[in-house]
Amino acid sequence: MSDDKIEKTPLVKEIPPKARDLSEWYQAVCYKAELVSLAPVRGCVVLRPYGFGLWERLQSELDRRFKETGHENAYFPLLIPESLLVREAEHVEGFAPEVAWVTEGGNEKLTERLAIRPTSEVVIGVMYAEWLQSYRDLPILINQWVNVMRWEKRTRPFLRTLEFLWQEGHTAHATEREAAEEVQRMLDIYRSVAQDIVGVPVYAGEKSESERFPGANHTFSIEALMPDGRALQAATSHELGQNFAKAYDIKFAAEDQTVQYAWTTSWGMSWRMLGALIMVHGDDRGLRIPPKMAPVEAVIVPIVRAGSDEVVAAARALLATLKGAGLRVKLDERDLRPGNKFSDWEMRGVPLRVELGAKDIEAGVATLVRRDKEKGEEGGKLVVPLAEVAARIAALLEDIQANLYREARAFLESHTLRPSDRSEFFERCRERAGMIDIPWCGLESCEAIVKAETSATTRVTRPLEGGESTCVACGEPAAMRAFFAQSY
Amino acid sequence: MSDDKIEKTPLVKEIPPKARDLSEWYQAVCYKAELVSLAPVRGCVVLRPYGFGLWERLQSELDRRFKETGHENAYFPLLIPESLLVREAEHVEGFAPEVAWVTEGGNEKLTERLAIRPTSEVVIGVMYAEWLQSYRDLPILINQWVNVMRWEKRTRPFLRTLEFLWQEGHTAHATEREAAEEVQRMLDIYRSVAQDIVGVPVYAGEKSESERFPGANHTFSIEALMPDGRALQAATSHELGQNFAKAYDIKFAAEDQTVQYAWTTSWGMSWRMLGALIMVHGDDRGLRIPPKMAPVEAVIVPIVRAGSDEVVAAARALLATLKGAGLRVKLDERDLRPGNKFSDWEMRGVPLRVELGAKDIEAGVATLVRRDKEKGEEGGKLVVPLAEVAARIAALLEDIQANLYREARAFLESHTLRPSDRSEFFERCRERAGMIDIPWCGLESCEAIVKAETSATTRVTRPLEGGESTCVACGEPAAMRAFFAQSY
Repeated sequence: MSDDKIEKTPLVKEIPPKARDLSEWYQAVCYKAELVSLAPVRGCVVLRPYGFGLWERLQSELDRRFKETGHENAYFPLLIPESLLVREAEHVEGFAPEVAWVTEGGNEKLTERLAIRPTSEVVIGVMYAEWLQSYRDLPILINQWVNVMRWEKRTRPFLRTLEFLWQEGHTAHATEREAAEEVQRMLDIYRSVAQDIVGVPVYAGEKSESERFPGANHTFSIEALMPDGRALQAATSHELGQNFAKAYDIKFAAEDQTVQYAWTTSWGMSWRMLGALIMVHGDDRGLRIPPKMAPVEAVIVPIVRAGSDEVVAAARALLATLKGAGLRVKLDERDLRPGNKFSDWEMRGVPLRVELGAKDIEAGVATLVRRDKEKGEEGGKLVVPLAEVAARIAALLEDIQANLYREARAFLESHTLRPSDRSEFFERCRERAGMIDIPWCGLESCEAIVKAETSATTRVTRPLEGGESTCVACGEPAAMRAFFAQSY
Repeated sequence: MSDDKIEKTPLVKEIPPKARDLSEWYQAVCYKAELVSLAPVRGCVVLRPYGFGLWERLQSELDRRFKETGHENAYFPLLIPESLLVREAEHVEGFAPEVAWVTEGGNEKLTERLAIRPTSEVVIGVMYAEWLQSYRDLPILINQWVNVMRWEKRTRPFLRTLEFLWQEGHTAHATEREAAEEVQRMLDIYRSVAQDIVGVPVYAGEKSESERFPGANHTFSIEALMPDGRALQAATSHELGQNFAKAYDIKFAAEDQTVQYAWTTSWGMSWRMLGALIMVHGDDRGLRIPPKMAPVEAVIVPIVRAGSDEVVAAARALLATLKGAGLRVKLDERDLRPGNKFSDWEMRGVPLRVELGAKDIEAGVATLVRRDKEKGEEGGKLVVPLAEVAARIAALLEDIQANLYREARAFLESHTLRPSDRSEFFERCRERAGMIDIPWCGLESCEAIVKAETSATTRVTRPLEGGESTCVACGEPAAMRAFFAQSY
């Protein structure tokens, strides 16, 4: 057995109500919908095919946007020699406590420990120093899709695991302005993918100094609000200034013949975004996946009595039609009762169910059932002529995508609070009332007091809107607006 | 510094002639074409954007075929507890000497060593045991695209590195026959991708016992022939029998109510395939990439005197046209002489160059230059009306793909030898004459003698064709045919 206790994946018979205990519901859904299993190594999960299907959707949406903005993919090594890791002082201080070390290889003890990458600024910095000669080589715009490892104590599927999958972009620029623009460009891509694809509304803004990435001058993030009133940081984008360039010697001959340090950035989104999707959209029947993220947009369930070949044949024909229309569709031909199939696909959050029985075929129709509506809710069930199914599905998927986002947006807005006095502010923070939006002094000391007394931290800040004069938390002059919340 | 000497990427000014020293030429091309750099950790490389572009092409071709044959992707953890790794005796014996071990995490010494996966049969076996209940759950058809690590002494880009990228498919079946069919199906996909996409002709067949995957009952592989007469194993597909099922308890309730062990398979192709592409097709000017593998199928080089806006505008219009036609095209607008651009793109092996100058535009034409032809060779340069460029490019790319394969196939065939006596056989093996095809006894003792005296090993075997009675290597009765060769 490994060093810490290894848990087996719990067998989930039924998921508990979401409102009773979000955390319990969340883990039950992750296992029951076959997104993940607990791995036989402490704090790690297996991303099962259905969960990986979600990840592939997210990857393809992000990757396309990265490429459209001029980025290319590459692959940098997993291991980082300790002597390299320690060169950027803040960075190593931030990450060293979470590092897993390789100390033996090929039956021999290594003379230097090798870190499994917790992130790749270091090894990428070393390579950029080798590659970069002249201003003509800039900007360098590279992304990689990789596994990283952070040795965490407590873990939870998608939200925090020792090993996780993510993408990390690393760029180098000739000027601070270009680097800053890049950081905002990528933050915008994250915001747009979170909202328009994953259907999760976010607040984007700058992190306070205490929440900054180790080694960054400015860190920006997108923050989503979970149903329990806690915030979840879903992606970050960092201005690294010339800090890494100086530590790893990333220099270039500028147009004016001087030798200058490059301005670098990094930005990342991980499978954590899937955790947000699950918590924000799920309900008591399981997942509800926004169509643009759905590995299966619609599932056809034949309503068959034993040996009804005609129904199966019609279902297969419909499958071919829908696939031909470019939809991601499955036909469920398993030897199970239709009712069991219904609840199975509901658990998996497939946006649309297409029911097809002998009577439907006689009448030349199919029944479409929306996953985003409650049972019995108006518009949740539609009987549609077979010839129109493909077109109707396409339109319904758009509507479901919009509806899930609208619901989530309404929740975020109704849980964004602007307390006007100190005690109300502290109370709201303590009770996890949502995103608590106040004029803030920007002082670390003030943030530390709020955190100690309420467990809430600043999530993102933004410029004052005008008119605010004092920090609601401490009464000092306000310097910015900040969202406070307890967080994942 | 790390434990072993860390080399810096050599600066390559010119590549040597390919015929002089294949190994030297190979490494020079890998660096000069910016496929890889040496990483700051011993025995690892960075796959640079252009090299990663090749990998993405290979991935997309394989992944599509895996999905078409019913496989899904997933992700299993990087680390494997030692206590799990040791359960399949042959497997651990085969891999233990090459394992890198994590022994510290989060500033603490672990009580059990964790292996970085050299391959994932073990951790996947444990999960399949958890997931599999009934025959209805079979087959399980899963693939993963991951990094793996094998602690090698000598390394070379793509061919052998401590860390490498690959895909590994792992399947479980109810019967031995189904598992055997799966293994052949995947071997066929590898053969077809190697030949039809990468343009590398291969021999496919079964490995001898001594060359088998540790823990497999049967290992099949595809073997390509490199210009120096050495074979390169480019992918493998294994029948694991019930060995892993028994070691990791992968059982199911069969249709007849009995509890049975599953029959499992695994199969993998790595970035090694790119090494074969480079060696087989490259020439003294650098890479020659088969169009289906080319990140850039055609590059437009404007032949511009300073300030020739008209040419640049025409080149950009042509770029848009060609992109619109679905081609992977680049326009090289760098501030360099056209001649330098030509050799740069030749080095990178882009199949077609499109030259466009002021006179061409006046005449309404462009000049297409094929990378697969020698300079001055007939058909290597074509002047084409601008309106026809897109269509001509598409046709030429097909022709280049076919031509590169034809060349490589001719080399393989002319270097497949059938010596009829023992001394000729040993001589051909020793001089690396190519794939040495003989009736073979199948005995390990015979194979060991050949290896000791010539460094050649069996690559793949196949059934006798009839008529052969004795092993050319030792005179014992022949049991099969075998290709012998020295190998990478």
